[in-house]
Amino acid sequence: MKQSLFYVPTLREAPKDAEVKSHKLMARAGIIRMSAAGIYTYLPLGYAVIKKIETIVREEMDKRGGSELLMPALQPRDLWEESGRWAEYGPELMRLKDRKERDFCLGPTHEEVITEAVRDHINSYKKLPLALYQIQTKFRDEMRPRFGLMRGREFIMKDMYTFSESEEDLAVWYQRMKEAYTEVFRRCGLQTRIVASDVGQIGGDEAHEFMVMSEVGEDTISYCTVCEYASNKEFSGLKKGDDCPECGGGIETAQGIEVGNIFKLGTKYSESMSATFTDKDGKRKPAIMGCYGLGISRTLMAVVEQHSSENGLVWPDELAPFDVHVVPVKYAGEAHIEAVNGLYDRLKKSFAVLLDDRDERLGAKLADADLIGIPARILIGRDFAEGKVEFSDLRSGKKRLVDVDDIETALSK
Amino acid sequence: MKQSLFYVPTLREAPKDAEVKSHKLMARAGIIRMSAAGIYTYLPLGYAVIKKIETIVREEMDKRGGSELLMPALQPRDLWEESGRWAEYGPELMRLKDRKERDFCLGPTHEEVITEAVRDHINSYKKLPLALYQIQTKFRDEMRPRFGLMRGREFIMKDMYTFSESEEDLAVWYQRMKEAYTEVFRRCGLQTRIVASDVGQIGGDEAHEFMVMSEVGEDTISYCTVCEYASNKEFSGLKKGDDCPECGGGIETAQGIEVGNIFKLGTKYSESMSATFTDKDGKRKPAIMGCYGLGISRTLMAVVEQHSSENGLVWPDELAPFDVHVVPVKYAGEAHIEAVNGLYDRLKKSFAVLLDDRDERLGAKLADADLIGIPARILIGRDFAEGKVEFSDLRSGKKRLVDVDDIETALSK
Repeated sequence: MKQSLFYVPTLREAPKDAEVKSHKLMARAGIIRMSAAGIYTYLPLGYAVIKKIETIVREEMDKRGGSELLMPALQPRDLWEESGRWAEYGPELMRLKDRKERDFCLGPTHEEVITEAVRDHINSYKKLPLALYQIQTKFRDEMRPRFGLMRGREFIMKDMYTFSESEEDLAVWYQRMKEAYTEVFRRCGLQTRIVASDVGQIGGDEAHEFMVMSEVGEDTISYCTVCEYASNKEFSGLKKGDDCPECGGGIETAQGIEVGNIFKLGTKYSESMSATFTDKDGKRKPAIMGCYGLGISRTLMAVVEQHSSENGLVWPDELAPFDVHVVPVKYAGEAHIEAVNGLYDRLKKSFAVLLDDRDERLGAKLADADLIGIPARILIGRDFAEGKVEFSDLRSGKKRLVDVDDIETALSK
Repeated sequence: MKQSLFYVPTLREAPKDAEVKSHKLMARAGIIRMSAAGIYTYLPLGYAVIKKIETIVREEMDKRGGSELLMPALQPRDLWEESGRWAEYGPELMRLKDRKERDFCLGPTHEEVITEAVRDHINSYKKLPLALYQIQTKFRDEMRPRFGLMRGREFIMKDMYTFSESEEDLAVWYQRMKEAYTEVFRRCGLQTRIVASDVGQIGGDEAHEFMVMSEVGEDTISYCTVCEYASNKEFSGLKKGDDCPECGGGIETAQGIEVGNIFKLGTKYSESMSATFTDKDGKRKPAIMGCYGLGISRTLMAVVEQHSSENGLVWPDELAPFDVHVVPVKYAGEAHIEAVNGLYDRLKKSFAVLLDDRDERLGAKLADADLIGIPARILIGRDFAEGKVEFSDLRSGKKRLVDVDDIETALSK
C-alpha cells in the first residue's frame, strides 16, 4: 500500500476531550476520528487492526464449533415485549419509530432476536446444541461517553449465543468459550484476568468478565494475591471453594477494562419466548442458553493502552496492519523512485508493505511512522546506492544496516 | 464444518410474503430469515456467501488504490444541515433522538460523514487524490419493502468516495471503478449491463448503474440492440455520441436489478461543507468528488435469482460457502462414524468441507443439499466398504463413482 492513498491524518496535538493515553494516541495516530460524542469513524489504520482482531475472533470461535451469522441492528419492539426488556431497559436503549409509527430499538445485545430466530427450529434435542455468533455494530446511549472507544455509543462486538439441552452441555460451552477468550486476548497481545461477576441486566446464573488490568479501567477488581481468584465484588478471601482458605493470600484491588464477558443465561429468554424442545424422555423443556460478548473496538483501545508510550505505539505481531514500513528519506528523482518502487514491488510478493511515498520532510515521516507503529521499518537513505538499507526492529529499538538482498531474511526472523 | 452445528433451518414451504423465486428459495434454504418487514437476519449459509462477496469487493477496491475504513451508522443532524439534506430527505431517512434530545439519523449514505472526516486534512493538492471505502450496514425506511433483500430497510453496502484535484483525475477514478465493478460482478457469476442514469437525490454530474437483467427487476432499461448503449430513460437511438446513429440498431426494453451505481458528484458536498484545498497555482478550490455504491446484500439476492431453479441453487465457484458437501447415507455405528470422520478430517486439510452429520433420512439430507447448493457433493453409501464414493458435479448433473483415494484429484478439477 502506498501511504499517500492510505489515509492516516496524524495530528501534532491530541484533541482536548481526549483524557487517557490510548485515546490521545488513537486520535493523534489517525486511528479513529470522533464524529459525535461516543461515535467514531475507524480510519484505515484503525480499521485494518479491527479486521485483524475480527479474524482472530472468527478463528477461535469457528475452531470450537461456532457458526457465524449476522442479525439486524433494528429490532422490533414486539420482541422486547416478549422478553419483558422493553420496559426494563433504561435510556441506554436507543429507540425510534419507523414511518408507520412502529417502535424499534437499535440493538445493544441480541438475546431476543437470536431466540426468535431459532425457536421454530429447535423442536427436538437432536437439533441441539447450537452455538451462533456475530460480529456487529451495537448501540448503547451512554450517559457519559468517554475515553474514546472505551465507553462509546456505537461500538463493535462479537456476541455468541449457545442453546443446550442440559446444564452439563452449557457448562461445556461455557468452559470452551473461557478458553477461546483466553486465546483471543493472548493472540491480541493482551494480559487479561478472569473475574467472577454479577449477571446484571442480561440476567442468568453465572458470569465471568475478562479484564485488562489498567489504571484507566472503570471497574474495580478484588483478587487474592496467591490463588488469583478475582471478583468484581469485594470478598474476604474465602471464595474459591476449598483452595482459597488454605492459600493464605491477601486481597488486593486494581482497576480493569472489561473486554469480554460470558454468562450462563439459563432459561430466562427461552422460557419467556417459548424456545422449547422435546427431550429424549419426550418432555417439552426450554433450551438452556449461554451468551458470550467480546468487545472488538474496546479490545483495540486496550491494546493501544498496553502497547504504547506517549509518543507512539508498536502493534503486537498478530495485529500489525502491515509487516513492514518502508520509509525512503527522499522519494524524488525518476531513477530513485523507480529503484524504491522496484524494492517495494519485490517485498510485496512476500509481505504486507506500507511505502511512505509522500512528499514530506524526513522528520515528519519518522514521527508519523512512530505513531503508526509497524514493528519492522526499513529506512532507505544514502547507503541505498551501495545496496544497503537501515533495518529497525521497533520493539527492541535495534537498528542495523542490511543488504538489500537480505531484507526478506531479516523480516522473516 | 459439521452440519449439525451449521444452523441451516430449511423449510418445506416458502413463507407467504415471498413473491419472487430468489426470496422463496432464500427463505426455504435457510439463507435469510425475516425479523421485521424489510429487515433480515443472514443465517450462517447466507452470511458465508456475503463474506465471500465482501472479500471479492475488498480485493477489487484495494487493487485499484482504495483504502477501507468504517464510518458510524449514527449521524448527527448538524452534518446533514451543512449539506442541506436534513430538510431535503424524505421519510426514507430514519431519524431518532438521543437521551439528550439531540437529532440523529441512521445513515443511508455517507457523503456528509466522509467529507467531514477529510476536510481538515486535504489542505493541499499534495494530499489528493483519496479513495476511501467502507462495507457497512445502511438504513432506508422504504415505503414498501419487498422481494426479500431486493428492497430492504437495513442492508449491506460498499460505498466508496473519491476526492480529486481535477475533473481529469475524477474521470480516472470513475473509469477505474467501472472496471472494478465489472470485475466484481463477473467474479460473482453475474451478467450485468452498464446503464446511463439520473443522478437523483445524491446529486452530481454523471452517473451509471450496474444492472442485472431479470424479470423481477424494478427498473426499466432501454438499450440499443446493436451498440449496446443502455439508459434508464427512454431514448431514440441517437445517444452514444457518433456511434449510435450509424449502428442502426433498434431500441428494446428490459427489467433490471440495480446492484451498483457510480456518480460523478462534482463539488456539491465539498462546496457546501468547505472541503477545499490549495492547488498548484495557489488557489483555494473545492475537492472534486465521486461516489460509488455496490449493494452487497442485493448482489446475494441477484446471484440466487440467476443461479437457481425452483428446487435449489448451485453457487458460482467463487461464492460457494464450502468446496464440497459430504453426505453419508447413514451416520451411525461407531466404526462407520469413525471412518466417515477420518475422510472428513483428511479432506479438510485441502478443502472447505461441510459434513452432514445429522440424524436424518437420506431423502431429507439430499433435499437440503439441493437447497444449500454446494457445487461438488460426495455421497457416502454402500460402496464405501469397497473404498468408493459417489461424486456429483451439481452444475453438470454428472455423477460417478470414485476411489476414496482419488477424491482430492476429482475435487481439484
